[in-house]
Amino acid sequence: MAIKTPYVAVDGIIKVFDENENFKGIVLIERKNPPYGLALPGGFVDVGESVEEALIREMKEETNLDVEIVKLFNVYSKPDRDPRFHTVSIVFLCKAYGQPIGKDDAKKADVYRLEEIPFEKLVFDHGKILKDFLNS
Amino acid sequence: MAIKTPYVAVDGIIKVFDENENFKGIVLIERKNPPYGLALPGGFVDVGESVEEALIREMKEETNLDVEIVKLFNVYSKPDRDPRFHTVSIVFLCKAYGQPIGKDDAKKADVYRLEEIPFEKLVFDHGKILKDFLNS
Repeated sequence: MAIKTPYVAVDGIIKVFDENENFKGIVLIERKNPPYGLALPGGFVDVGESVEEALIREMKEETNLDVEIVKLFNVYSKPDRDPRFHTVSIVFLCKAYGQPIGKDDAKKADVYRLEEIPFEKLVFDHGKILKDFLNS
Repeated sequence: MAIKTPYVAVDGIIKVFDENENFKGIVLIERKNPPYGLALPGGFVDVGESVEEALIREMKEETNLDVEIVKLFNVYSKPDRDPRFHTVSIVFLCKAYGQPIGKDDAKKADVYRLEEIPFEKLVFDHGKILKDFLNS
């Protein structure tokens, strides 16, 4: 039996705090590869790792932050959410301290205050994900 | 770039009610294919369908029930949870009315009272999933 399913990815809504536990905002990255624009940090799950392991690895690779997973936020799976192919994204809420640094697939990584999220620059369905987050 | 990720599946914890809204139990199926044993109804997500669509389709195929999704329950992704290959399972809590009928990959489908779940017969990590459910 040949099994064919969508790809599985993880994305992180990283709440960033300073050393005094003040909430500073969430992290968005500027993508190095198409589709170009801003996005939540994330990436594909490797065979042999759990989604939680993938999330922590991808957040470190793209933002240099060591995140702590707070909880599963939701799963996004509309077939057209990724213009390249069908990708199911498992989205986690997580927290971290310090300043992100864009690395790997991220040209830049910055903290955005919730009032300043540039929705028009977000790729995939990350605008919807963040609106769901703001409404949650 | 060749992308390789785990397979994506959905599984349903179906709470069954009678016509008077009395809770009767949850549905387990007897698997027709290896690994043999009891399991939550579920199956692989097809390319081109959302995980919610896959859940409703698989519940109908395996139990003949028309389920209503209540909420996302959790995601299970340990690499060794499926003895055949790495499968990420997205588990939904749902509800349905009536008597299940085992079809397709299910030799049988029955309603089990929560006090009578035969944990020793459950395959994959479905025993853990149901313990998490009972503790939730």
